[in-house]
Amino acid sequence: MSSITILRDDGPAPAEATVQAAVRQAFEQLAAGRAVQPRQVVTDLPDGGDVIAYQAVLADAGVYAVKVSPYLPQPAGKAVVTAWTLLLSTRTGQPLLLADSARLTTERTAATTALAVDLLARPDAHRLAVIGLGPVGRAHLRHARVVRRFTEVRMWSRTATEADLDGLGGDVHLAASADEAADGADVVLLCTSAAAPVVDARRLAPGSLITSVSTNAPMAHEIDPAVLGNLDVYADYAPAAFAAGGEMRLAAAEHGFTLTDIRGDLAGLLAGAAPAPTGARPVFFRSVGLGIEDAAVALAALQILETSS
Amino acid sequence: MSSITILRDDGPAPAEATVQAAVRQAFEQLAAGRAVQPRQVVTDLPDGGDVIAYQAVLADAGVYAVKVSPYLPQPAGKAVVTAWTLLLSTRTGQPLLLADSARLTTERTAATTALAVDLLARPDAHRLAVIGLGPVGRAHLRHARVVRRFTEVRMWSRTATEADLDGLGGDVHLAASADEAADGADVVLLCTSAAAPVVDARRLAPGSLITSVSTNAPMAHEIDPAVLGNLDVYADYAPAAFAAGGEMRLAAAEHGFTLTDIRGDLAGLLAGAAPAPTGARPVFFRSVGLGIEDAAVALAALQILETSS
Repeated sequence: MSSITILRDDGPAPAEATVQAAVRQAFEQLAAGRAVQPRQVVTDLPDGGDVIAYQAVLADAGVYAVKVSPYLPQPAGKAVVTAWTLLLSTRTGQPLLLADSARLTTERTAATTALAVDLLARPDAHRLAVIGLGPVGRAHLRHARVVRRFTEVRMWSRTATEADLDGLGGDVHLAASADEAADGADVVLLCTSAAAPVVDARRLAPGSLITSVSTNAPMAHEIDPAVLGNLDVYADYAPAAFAAGGEMRLAAAEHGFTLTDIRGDLAGLLAGAAPAPTGARPVFFRSVGLGIEDAAVALAALQILETSS
Repeated sequence: MSSITILRDDGPAPAEATVQAAVRQAFEQLAAGRAVQPRQVVTDLPDGGDVIAYQAVLADAGVYAVKVSPYLPQPAGKAVVTAWTLLLSTRTGQPLLLADSARLTTERTAATTALAVDLLARPDAHRLAVIGLGPVGRAHLRHARVVRRFTEVRMWSRTATEADLDGLGGDVHLAASADEAADGADVVLLCTSAAAPVVDARRLAPGSLITSVSTNAPMAHEIDPAVLGNLDVYADYAPAAFAAGGEMRLAAAEHGFTLTDIRGDLAGLLAGAAPAPTGARPVFFRSVGLGIEDAAVALAALQILETSS
């Protein structure tokens, strides 16, 4: 058999532009029927916690991927969360890569949001707000800067101080609250593990963009489900976001929100099949995370390893 | 991170009794609510073929497993079929093993059938028929001999000659037809890739056992769906077999066969919750293959590697 590469989490991570190109390509393949995106499968563990399996096929690249991500509550302290991606060749049936995907997941999540910023934010967007200063928030800042020239960045998190902004750039300022950070911003990136609304999306200007990745916790949401009807709603992949997004589930149950109320998703926007934002309302982009993103970033990491070896 | 073991197909395979004990334990855990058996997921590939993912949790052993098995048709010649199992610790979230599961799948399949023979065949069963002389048939012969003292074995396949029996034992004889092999047998093991009935189950004596593993091809079956109503029907896992077994799908569509017509499955038999065969009719056991079997055999292989190193 051919050799399989094991990628530890301390291995080289692909550059932002590389991940973004890989993710964009994956959604283009999805639009063209050359990628397959099955639903994620959640398996509950008898002693608590679960394992989520994300599968995907990228036919042009000739790979099938499955990422398994266990969420393991501990008797004391924080839950253990890991993510491992197995990449198989659909030409030979042999494994190509087993990758620790903790950091890769953060990168592909931020790259997907950046793709949405590129497709949905105003071309002249220059005021950015990032809510959440963990690894996901920091990756979002790095990735968003690749697609727009932001001249003013306001960040906020529950616990952050000025010292947490070290190294992020002179244009980054700490806001006193999430709503203060978001006020007047052209793009607001929600990067929290909050289970309840973080900012009041009704305060955003028409045409401004607010994005949410949220968490895998059941019904987790970062914006008020009641507000969805007043926004231009987009998703990474409409059926997946409608099935898994907490604010969408709640909006469907309580406010008559339906799948067709999602104006478009990334594949639709890239293919020109989904309408652009109306400009009359704020724009909401929700990503739930897809196997094709995991497959794309794992493949990019493998190609870098193969080139450098 | 802890080290991960890579098991190639030429590594040591666990002994029959070891695999059977592991498989039995997995079904006991399933009966006790300590194992989780999600449905298998089939992902179709855009250029033909598919990948089946088999997941499972064995909570007492602290492992989650996913086996991915691509079926890849080739422009010329036979389709490529591989199987790889990734074992993760549900204690640490770290991978333990990535195993080539081609041979392990054959072993766990035969061990599961042997468990059914142990639970469903008459204690004094001594005449065995094995239909199919490929790796699955040969493994079935080895495994069946662990649970019953067969004194006479008749085998048959479309292409086999006497030379193919070399090394199988002096009590093994080649039959002129599948029905001749099955006539008068206490246990008939169907191990073919046939897409249509192989033997006439109506000719079997009351209380005799016929087993079928069949293939993953849609609607593949080795016995006539119309006969199911005249047999005591058992399965490896009733919901999985009813959903995936070709003869059960066809019997449901054409002959009013329902899930409750399956008298029991391995977990039910081990727990004493399922009734024994009536003795008045032939007994049919269908296995479709389960993730808990893959998890159990992979774990057994890992334990052998750890002990021997």
